[in-house]
Amino acid sequence: MSKRDPLVIVGAGLAGCVLATYLGRRGYPVEVFERHGDPRDAHVAKRPSLNITLCKRGISALERIGAQEIVLRAAAVAYGRKVHALDGTVAYQPYSNTGDALFSISRAALNDVLLSHAEAQPGVRIHFNRRCAQLDLADGVAHFEDTTTGATNAVQAERIFGADGAYSSVRQHLQKTERFNYSQQYLDQGYTTMKIPPLADGRPALDAGAIHIWPRGQRMSIGFPDREGTFNCSLLLPYRGAHSFETLRTEENVLQCFQELFPDAVGLVPGLVEQFFSRPPNSLVTIRCNPWSYEDKVLLVGDAAHAILPSYGQGANAAFEDCRILDQCIDECGGDWYAVFREFEQRRRPSLNVLADLCVEHFVELTEHVADPKFLRRREVERRLEEVYPDLYQPLYSMVSFTSRPYAEALRISRLQSAAIDEIVLIEGIERSVDRPEVRRLLSQSLRDTSAA
Amino acid sequence: MSKRDPLVIVGAGLAGCVLATYLGRRGYPVEVFERHGDPRDAHVAKRPSLNITLCKRGISALERIGAQEIVLRAAAVAYGRKVHALDGTVAYQPYSNTGDALFSISRAALNDVLLSHAEAQPGVRIHFNRRCAQLDLADGVAHFEDTTTGATNAVQAERIFGADGAYSSVRQHLQKTERFNYSQQYLDQGYTTMKIPPLADGRPALDAGAIHIWPRGQRMSIGFPDREGTFNCSLLLPYRGAHSFETLRTEENVLQCFQELFPDAVGLVPGLVEQFFSRPPNSLVTIRCNPWSYEDKVLLVGDAAHAILPSYGQGANAAFEDCRILDQCIDECGGDWYAVFREFEQRRRPSLNVLADLCVEHFVELTEHVADPKFLRRREVERRLEEVYPDLYQPLYSMVSFTSRPYAEALRISRLQSAAIDEIVLIEGIERSVDRPEVRRLLSQSLRDTSAA
Repeated sequence: MSKRDPLVIVGAGLAGCVLATYLGRRGYPVEVFERHGDPRDAHVAKRPSLNITLCKRGISALERIGAQEIVLRAAAVAYGRKVHALDGTVAYQPYSNTGDALFSISRAALNDVLLSHAEAQPGVRIHFNRRCAQLDLADGVAHFEDTTTGATNAVQAERIFGADGAYSSVRQHLQKTERFNYSQQYLDQGYTTMKIPPLADGRPALDAGAIHIWPRGQRMSIGFPDREGTFNCSLLLPYRGAHSFETLRTEENVLQCFQELFPDAVGLVPGLVEQFFSRPPNSLVTIRCNPWSYEDKVLLVGDAAHAILPSYGQGANAAFEDCRILDQCIDECGGDWYAVFREFEQRRRPSLNVLADLCVEHFVELTEHVADPKFLRRREVERRLEEVYPDLYQPLYSMVSFTSRPYAEALRISRLQSAAIDEIVLIEGIERSVDRPEVRRLLSQSLRDTSAA
Repeated sequence: MSKRDPLVIVGAGLAGCVLATYLGRRGYPVEVFERHGDPRDAHVAKRPSLNITLCKRGISALERIGAQEIVLRAAAVAYGRKVHALDGTVAYQPYSNTGDALFSISRAALNDVLLSHAEAQPGVRIHFNRRCAQLDLADGVAHFEDTTTGATNAVQAERIFGADGAYSSVRQHLQKTERFNYSQQYLDQGYTTMKIPPLADGRPALDAGAIHIWPRGQRMSIGFPDREGTFNCSLLLPYRGAHSFETLRTEENVLQCFQELFPDAVGLVPGLVEQFFSRPPNSLVTIRCNPWSYEDKVLLVGDAAHAILPSYGQGANAAFEDCRILDQCIDECGGDWYAVFREFEQRRRPSLNVLADLCVEHFVELTEHVADPKFLRRREVERRLEEVYPDLYQPLYSMVSFTSRPYAEALRISRLQSAAIDEIVLIEGIERSVDRPEVRRLLSQSLRDTSAA
């Protein structure tokens, strides 16, 4: 190993760009290899995706590398969600009582900003159209194929970081090591994306300060505002059965499905049928693996280590948090990369395991319980509790989205408090007023349990 | 597709041989391709393995293809387990009060018998040294490489069955299809095998009518009797930490580990140190995937579909049961292979999911709770209940091992009855006598819950 072999990052997506910036700022030479072309080039095809919803965790990580401002400038601000019922009525649910917001931005726009930010870092170089063809794990050598010429070259790396997403090729090489634990679980639903442009007069077609949801059980549509006043909509459907990607085969099928499920949206989507058929649906997968590293040579971060369902909008936030925490581990372990990788895994794994489970649970909640009056009443009581007792109670969704509390701790607190909520929802007339001494007592008690645990 | 394209089976291990026999008996041309050489050839290296413990499920499946007698003739009969404590005392636990037994046989001996049985079936041909190199799933073409010559050939198959074990190459091809759910989870322990030969006078060194267990928490030794009076012992150790495969590096380490953990076995294993170092440890993995099939072209059976931990000794039994149930599905679906594969998955998947979980739980039980007095007292009460109330109660282990009840149903009954057991173990003096009216009442009540559920 020469004195200044570079840190190699595979993947120049969201995680790869942020990681490159973090490592570049530390003075390391960083070489990033991206399989696809430069997405800032107008000729490179954009892959459709759900919008990214940045929240506190992700933004804190961007702040440390000076990227917060440029990213937020490109995002739309959503202070709550608007739920569109089948009868056309729309209910507004603010995310919090204190102005917490999600920052909605297309993956493509976010990636462009982060790429330019990473490239501006001295020491960081990004190579496009380079496919990771082979890794010599023990020697730390990565082999890349230039997808435009077919030429291959070998790069001697000081460390190799796999930031190459859910279908990570770096992880595929780790998978060949002994006793590698691995799991990939797909949802029975997939999604496709559609655009809602602004109205003729230039105003957004929907309230641009909210995320719009049309929940219909196993089927769902979500509209994310963009900075430009357009909405990037995701349509979630089962792969099989009624109103599914398998059965929606004709223009008539698609229109009928929309008219039945999302009647108030039909008029907002120009060329709805063409948009629907323009590309195959994207699948949704949860990926878990253990370990995330190989000795002191290779480390996975972001989706490559832990792809999760988008139910909490946490994928990119968790990936950025990975980078921030890895940076802390480097601070703390002073040059001992073996220790850095172990410490990183130890600190992140419990939280990411919990997050993966939460996303699966929350997905079921979103698709199955969202029309259940009992469930909705409980949610409403929780919202009121947060409003009246901000010092004593915060729903899980808020802890996940609007704090940097480790996911595992958020879940632990939520589970401990849920017994108190069970009791509180049984109180006669609770939905009319939560401001009662016994409610305060139950919540305080549950918090004491929390600190004791 | 010609009229008589063969059914192709990949793998001539235990599952492959039994499946070949089942399908051959139906009159199909069956071609079996095995990656390794013919194990009946003395020059072919035997891979060490835990012994197989055949129980009712496996034996019923063998009975249908006329293989029961030849297999049992080659097996040793164990009516119970002998548990060797650290102080040298040995406790005998009969498997049941009615003479239920396990039939212990080395994997190699069982495979030899089943190979010859399959080959004797008209229409069944077995090809050795043929590695499955590629599958064209949609066309049903399998490509095999002759590992002795390097030559490859393509076989047009009517159907392809993956019976090629935990590291199935057929499954690897299914994994490339869309939205394939897959998981591999390794234990932190591995095992190595050792032989205990008969004494100088020809008598077995231990009671040959029992399976011998030396439980030491995370470490364990198990001695399986063979027909010849030898014992095939498995030594289970963690990969890392004290007394582990990582730290046992010298002759002295190994002897010290044995003297500390298995003092009464040291004198029984000739060349203990040489045996220990003669090969790397085997890992233990749980593999789950979904689906097990591709259209009406490909089906996985046995470990290829569902590799489980050996804690219940069910791997081969479950694989043979797969073959029996697949045979039933063929009977019932009259030539519609698409329906056969769906029916097979629907019937087997719930049971195999349950079995995989049970094996992980039971493994933890074996390694962690086996020295817990509360746990042992409960087990003893259960044993006594089975003795006194054979019509009302059967422990889970017995339902798994000594009945053909679907695994999922066995677990359901066991979970429902466990509340009754919780109450029964609290009864003052219950360990002295279980013959009390309230015990009968609790058990009957739990069984009524069972039938209602």
